[in-house]
Amino acid sequence: MKKLIRGGTIVTASDCYVGEVLIEGEKVAAIGEQLDEEHAEIIDASGCYIFPGGIDPHTHLDMPFGGTVTADDFETGTRAAAFGGTTSIIDFCLTTKGNTLASAIQTWHKKAKGKACIDYGFHLMVSEASDEVLQELGAVVEKEGISSLKVFLAYKNVLQVDDETLFKTLVKAEQLGALVQVHAENGDVIDYLTKKALAEGKSEPIYHALTRPPEAEGEATGRAIALTALANAQLYVVHVSCAEAVKRIAEAREKGWKIYGETCPQYLVLDISSLDQPNFEGAKYVWSPPLREKWHQEVLWSALRSGILQTVGSDQCSFNFNGQKELGRGDFTKIPNGGPMIEDRFSLLYSEGVAKGRLSLNQFVDVISTKAAKLFGLFPKKGTIVVGSDADLVIFNPHAKRTISKKSHHMNVDYNAFEGMEVKGDIISVLSRGKYVIKEKEFVGQAGAGQFLKRRAFRQP
Amino acid sequence: MKKLIRGGTIVTASDCYVGEVLIEGEKVAAIGEQLDEEHAEIIDASGCYIFPGGIDPHTHLDMPFGGTVTADDFETGTRAAAFGGTTSIIDFCLTTKGNTLASAIQTWHKKAKGKACIDYGFHLMVSEASDEVLQELGAVVEKEGISSLKVFLAYKNVLQVDDETLFKTLVKAEQLGALVQVHAENGDVIDYLTKKALAEGKSEPIYHALTRPPEAEGEATGRAIALTALANAQLYVVHVSCAEAVKRIAEAREKGWKIYGETCPQYLVLDISSLDQPNFEGAKYVWSPPLREKWHQEVLWSALRSGILQTVGSDQCSFNFNGQKELGRGDFTKIPNGGPMIEDRFSLLYSEGVAKGRLSLNQFVDVISTKAAKLFGLFPKKGTIVVGSDADLVIFNPHAKRTISKKSHHMNVDYNAFEGMEVKGDIISVLSRGKYVIKEKEFVGQAGAGQFLKRRAFRQP
Amino acid sequence: MKKLIRGGTIVTASDCYVGEVLIEGEKVAAIGEQLDEEHAEIIDASGCYIFPGGIDPHTHLDMPFGGTVTADDFETGTRAAAFGGTTSIIDFCLTTKGNTLASAIQTWHKKAKGKACIDYGFHLMVSEASDEVLQELGAVVEKEGISSLKVFLAYKNVLQVDDETLFKTLVKAEQLGALVQVHAENGDVIDYLTKKALAEGKSEPIYHALTRPPEAEGEATGRAIALTALANAQLYVVHVSCAEAVKRIAEAREKGWKIYGETCPQYLVLDISSLDQPNFEGAKYVWSPPLREKWHQEVLWSALRSGILQTVGSDQCSFNFNGQKELGRGDFTKIPNGGPMIEDRFSLLYSEGVAKGRLSLNQFVDVISTKAAKLFGLFPKKGTIVVGSDADLVIFNPHAKRTISKKSHHMNVDYNAFEGMEVKGDIISVLSRGKYVIKEKEFVGQAGAGQFLKRRAFRQP
Amino acid sequence: MKKLIRGGTIVTASDCYVGEVLIEGEKVAAIGEQLDEEHAEIIDASGCYIFPGGIDPHTHLDMPFGGTVTADDFETGTRAAAFGGTTSIIDFCLTTKGNTLASAIQTWHKKAKGKACIDYGFHLMVSEASDEVLQELGAVVEKEGISSLKVFLAYKNVLQVDDETLFKTLVKAEQLGALVQVHAENGDVIDYLTKKALAEGKSEPIYHALTRPPEAEGEATGRAIALTALANAQLYVVHVSCAEAVKRIAEAREKGWKIYGETCPQYLVLDISSLDQPNFEGAKYVWSPPLREKWHQEVLWSALRSGILQTVGSDQCSFNFNGQKELGRGDFTKIPNGGPMIEDRFSLLYSEGVAKGRLSLNQFVDVISTKAAKLFGLFPKKGTIVVGSDADLVIFNPHAKRTISKKSHHMNVDYNAFEGMEVKGDIISVLSRGKYVIKEKEFVGQAGAGQFLKRRAFRQP
Repeated sequence: MKKLIRGGTIVTASDCYVGEVLIEGEKVAAIGEQLDEEHAEIIDASGCYIFPGGIDPHTHLDMPFGGTVTADDFETGTRAAAFGGTTSIIDFCLTTKGNTLASAIQTWHKKAKGKACIDYGFHLMVSEASDEVLQELGAVVEKEGISSLKVFLAYKNVLQVDDETLFKTLVKAEQLGALVQVHAENGDVIDYLTKKALAEGKSEPIYHALTRPPEAEGEATGRAIALTALANAQLYVVHVSCAEAVKRIAEAREKGWKIYGETCPQYLVLDISSLDQPNFEGAKYVWSPPLREKWHQEVLWSALRSGILQTVGSDQCSFNFNGQKELGRGDFTKIPNGGPMIEDRFSLLYSEGVAKGRLSLNQFVDVISTKAAKLFGLFPKKGTIVVGSDADLVIFNPHAKRTISKKSHHMNVDYNAFEGMEVKGDIISVLSRGKYVIKEKEFVGQAGAGQFLKRRAFRQP
Repeated sequence: MKKLIRGGTIVTASDCYVGEVLIEGEKVAAIGEQLDEEHAEIIDASGCYIFPGGIDPHTHLDMPFGGTVTADDFETGTRAAAFGGTTSIIDFCLTTKGNTLASAIQTWHKKAKGKACIDYGFHLMVSEASDEVLQELGAVVEKEGISSLKVFLAYKNVLQVDDETLFKTLVKAEQLGALVQVHAENGDVIDYLTKKALAEGKSEPIYHALTRPPEAEGEATGRAIALTALANAQLYVVHVSCAEAVKRIAEAREKGWKIYGETCPQYLVLDISSLDQPNFEGAKYVWSPPLREKWHQEVLWSALRSGILQTVGSDQCSFNFNGQKELGRGDFTKIPNGGPMIEDRFSLLYSEGVAKGRLSLNQFVDVISTKAAKLFGLFPKKGTIVVGSDADLVIFNPHAKRTISKKSHHMNVDYNAFEGMEVKGDIISVLSRGKYVIKEKEFVGQAGAGQFLKRRAFRQP
Repeated sequence: MKKLIRGGTIVTASDCYVGEVLIEGEKVAAIGEQLDEEHAEIIDASGCYIFPGGIDPHTHLDMPFGGTVTADDFETGTRAAAFGGTTSIIDFCLTTKGNTLASAIQTWHKKAKGKACIDYGFHLMVSEASDEVLQELGAVVEKEGISSLKVFLAYKNVLQVDDETLFKTLVKAEQLGALVQVHAENGDVIDYLTKKALAEGKSEPIYHALTRPPEAEGEATGRAIALTALANAQLYVVHVSCAEAVKRIAEAREKGWKIYGETCPQYLVLDISSLDQPNFEGAKYVWSPPLREKWHQEVLWSALRSGILQTVGSDQCSFNFNGQKELGRGDFTKIPNGGPMIEDRFSLLYSEGVAKGRLSLNQFVDVISTKAAKLFGLFPKKGTIVVGSDADLVIFNPHAKRTISKKSHHMNVDYNAFEGMEVKGDIISVLSRGKYVIKEKEFVGQAGAGQFLKRRAFRQP
Repeated sequence: MKKLIRGGTIVTASDCYVGEVLIEGEKVAAIGEQLDEEHAEIIDASGCYIFPGGIDPHTHLDMPFGGTVTADDFETGTRAAAFGGTTSIIDFCLTTKGNTLASAIQTWHKKAKGKACIDYGFHLMVSEASDEVLQELGAVVEKEGISSLKVFLAYKNVLQVDDETLFKTLVKAEQLGALVQVHAENGDVIDYLTKKALAEGKSEPIYHALTRPPEAEGEATGRAIALTALANAQLYVVHVSCAEAVKRIAEAREKGWKIYGETCPQYLVLDISSLDQPNFEGAKYVWSPPLREKWHQEVLWSALRSGILQTVGSDQCSFNFNGQKELGRGDFTKIPNGGPMIEDRFSLLYSEGVAKGRLSLNQFVDVISTKAAKLFGLFPKKGTIVVGSDADLVIFNPHAKRTISKKSHHMNVDYNAFEGMEVKGDIISVLSRGKYVIKEKEFVGQAGAGQFLKRRAFRQP
């Protein structure tokens, strides 16, 4: 069965033009004017943009954290993602010291299988750089199709690695063509500051932010960059939140180094004042890195616009306020870190970015989809609309508006960090490999339809 | 008559995929797989890249300079451009104080009409910011389709304007949506240094470079940027040659300002040592800004790769060595500035950029074509390969090699600055609005086939 | 007659120690413990600091400006300076095009002679760089003892020079060992913005500040620095007011260039909000460059502390509110620029700098006295307390407080920009070349006692 | 007994003047002209400079390292120091985990006692930040007079600490008023690179330098600075060798942070090519950080001149070529790190700095003596020439020359890294607390005459 999308404006990371898209099976078969409509289901996209499906390079679904587990699993999470215009995610596969990478990957496959409504890939966390692990990484990159490796410089005594581990990972990544991802905050400093705050009776959510200062992020970012340069490797700094980190990335890129950065909607739109709400409401806004002073927002927008940062991930990591976020009453360190963002990432970027004149349409597509596909080895299967690419498409009405709310969202979580916010534009239909997942704003996909994405090695975009 | 290009790999600023391109009339009508070949001339592009035609945003054809006139006019220049994979140029229309802009534009139209083999537009030089000129600029941008304005901060007492003129131009440009282009060298300093050098008997070509130090370029670049920021306008720095200028542009872009930069093949590939050749041979390498110390080259490549610079222009401005460059024997200030570059810009960038791993294929297309189209209001008519865009296409064989030489080049000039250099890749055929200009390496176009390009106002790319 | 100062703590730019100072005639003859008190008048400085007399490198006394003349002349100005702990000033000798430098200097000598209560030197303004002027500069530096040359990049059509004049001055200064001083604001931009504001009916004092944005200062500072580097000369940026200028100076100093900077108490203590007062009160706070947003203050303090800026001048340029500042009612461009600062410079720096922990005692002395002496060729005659240096001394009680007010100040002007502000520390007595000018807070000096200071050529401090 | 030094030019960090210095006992009693010479030994300093005795803030005497011990102990080392114009040293007291700081200090006192010919203090190494150690630090700073704490970020598994230890040390130092010193190289990276080099059979001395790249120093410097800022503490970066580190220090100082830096004569005068000499001669030039590419030298000189760096230490750490450096034949990691520098530090800085016009006389005194005294709590007892300060004086003939050689040096080591180099200026006599140590180039001091210097807490200079 064919589908023919008519009347829309096709937008890619570089192009913007009126055209028809013919889908055959899972692929884009042709783009033209007045294409042959025989045997084709006609989809009317008049007045709409046709975007490549969003790629969310940063999700945590069904993830254990601090004794609890995220509210959204691969089913609820990917369904919500689809509602929000995202057709591929790359989730973080956690590992633990002493266990094989293969077993961790197996665990993650089990979480996703039969549940994911859209396609998905995995990043692999590196928690140690033993000879065994380094040895196993070759197979991970080449056979498992997992070409990105995550290291944490924060979460002391839990996820944090030392510089030796980071450096060995970078050296190995350079050999294998893997992209190293770094959570760049100095965990030693944060560990000290959080213990000190608690000892002083400072237990409210705001202290989560105050004990993770931007200099701790700038430092770790600079360190990871320096080590990457020394290894002649490639680095992707996840969830950049502040000017200090942007500065280090800009410096590195000016030198021509292979350094890339991601920010998230929360850092572009929210600020530290959200953590200071009464009745423990601030807990809803606990991310790591934390929300920053408001002036950092324009620094991040400028960095997206000028290409210093390349992508916007959701860092989806949802916990209910009731029963989960509440674990941290009286001790902010026990608040599960993260928030629900997978569904609104796309809308927020369009509304705050394009509609407010901060990003061009092409830049929007680039940061919401294309650059992630390129950096993480999915391009051109994903991340664009060209002949031969997967028909992962979003039909988007820029003239509509909608209001974000927990009442209407589809994530399995009891609050929305943007409750009541009106965004410009609305996602009408979403196709994944040629099939509707969302049709006229209704979910018509199915759990398990999503396929695992084997990704190729890193290549400069 | 239709044309169907088969077997090639289509490359745009963002995409790279196998597909067929169907041309109807002047436009790309469809892109697909196994498109209907009925009534279509089949063009076999097997093993080749299909690139959008190059756009050269910086040419000087049939231009008077220092009592002589460039060796190439619109006929020889655009024919050579076509051989070199370029299908659009934007030439600089010079103005003189006291005359209307309209008359200058008329003069330029006369130079091009009936001669140009490919499409062309004009930038307009602003030599004064009188009320009359500022008034007339509105019509220039809106009616003449000339949406870019050039000011010189160098060439004291000839082309140079003061900061008032620059600032008024920027303010007007902000209102009109024009992109201001700046030749950023401090003319006052250079004027002093050249007079001093001559007074000291330093008359050889090398003194052209030594009297135009990089700090003079960095200064003027920083100044133009500051004034642009104050006018909330948009600026395009032409022919960036050195680290000092790159640094100022990088700073500005980090702040989110609308600052763009162009470099040229000569700065990426040649260095100051070329000016120091015996027998006045150095005169062949006299550009302004001058060639720099070799280490600047990697700074420029890094700036292209990281997006600090956006385009590569040729600054085509050819003068014969015999009879023209020779005017400067005994006085380097009398050497006509500039060189023949319109034909080899595309090849050099591919060979030195893509083939040497400094730029990705997409980045190559972006800097050689797409970003110029976007910045100068030609997009998506020009600068890409999508349905509805002009069928300006280059069929490029990456497996071939060729050697650059005055013997084989098509510019009307008696030397080539890259004589004997081997480049990877070869341009097989070139189409302009659906018609062959170059077919299997033979010129089949015709003088006068090129059309004037009315360009729309500036929009952030 | 000898004087012996006992019981005080001697503070220089480097040292801080308890010692006795023996003065013989005009000079410090010895420093010791239990020095021979025979024939000496004993001055008890118990509990006090003994500072070198302040050197104010930036004053405008008896200066015509915009059809009026400063309220303070060399008599009232230097008497007030002495009350404020300053024992030397360097005033700006204005020149006009077409007249000899000698005649301008003569005019300035007449203004000072018989009036000055403390020693004084002159900087010379360079308003053109004709061959005659450049020729005459040699004599000025070598014979007249005027080794600093001021150029204005602002005040279009009045004082402003072009880059050629600046560059020629720098080149000449390098040959002569003169320090070039620059008023660094882009006058062309400011001229445009002020005319535009007036045309829009924006005539209140606040528009003085809003039409002189910090980028215009940063730009001109960067330009002057670049030209200085190209001339291999030395530059002193007067009245630095903002972060943009500090950044350019810091960059230059990191490169090892001979670039120096001065700020003023107004920029360290006041901010732009002062200009927005009702009833035209804002006119009292009209300086050029203007007061800035408050956050710039800490940037300037940090720059003093880290040595990026070296001196603090008063930029004394007083006009009465009644009758003078009022000239600008209805047109801010007619408000005479400047304010009364010569008397409180020293106190403000001590109180806001030392007492608030921003500067050490040594740094205070350095910025208020020593570095000016070194940069302007007065050292070690002035600017320190060592054997053989002039006995220009301030006995300062750090335990006292005083309140700044027009009621108690000694400047001949009808307001004080710091009215009602309490400062820590008080100036008890001041000696100039061994004689009291201020004795126990009473003026005991005399008009005409001050001598002209012939200054030697520039030497790196 | 008094001494009266006549005819010399007294130079301090700020002043330079002709005067007589009267010494009574250990102190400077008076400075004047024609002081009473009764009962005083007259010292003729005609034609000479009188400098404050040099303060070497960075020595390793009698220090175990890699199974051997430095060739110079407190007797030979301090005698050589005195020959070289140094009258105070601050040596590094090493500690080991699990032992009390008191015991380590006791060990160091034993090494020095009865041997030191000049005064000496100790810095204390912090090798762990256990509660016990942090507790003991209070007594160290307040009672032992040791107000500077050294941490190593290099020498993995030997001296290196993690960021937690560094941060806790900084927090404690902020409370106690201690200055934290950091050896800033990323030990994890270096450890990896050295092992890799050895595994590849790269065992010659040059690989010592190639496995310690400047980025590893820049990174660690930036990290230590960020942590210092977060602790609101004060930091002194020892032996800065490269542009990357200077840049981080300059950035920090521009922000007003309390960050200070030291370089060493070897980095100012020698470069990496020294390590590439045949016959294992390169081992003589093995320092950590290593010698760098030649262009870094001018960056360091500029940083000293502009105040980005404040001091020049010797990092004296001598090992004989025969028997000690030779331990590293076939394995560069076994070459004892360090070299003999205590004797020539002063001369080299004068000759390469002052005589070559890179530093003024005042700057020379500041970096060779005064700033170290100020930063390390010895001022004004040491580091200057004022009434009440210790009569630690150097009589220096700027008109003489001498040639550096192992044949004539006084260090107990069998080579000199500057063999055959001619330096301008010669040290004639040296007094320590009023007594000759060197008299007319002969040693007349005695082992054990040097006293331990209890230093006060840190204060901003």
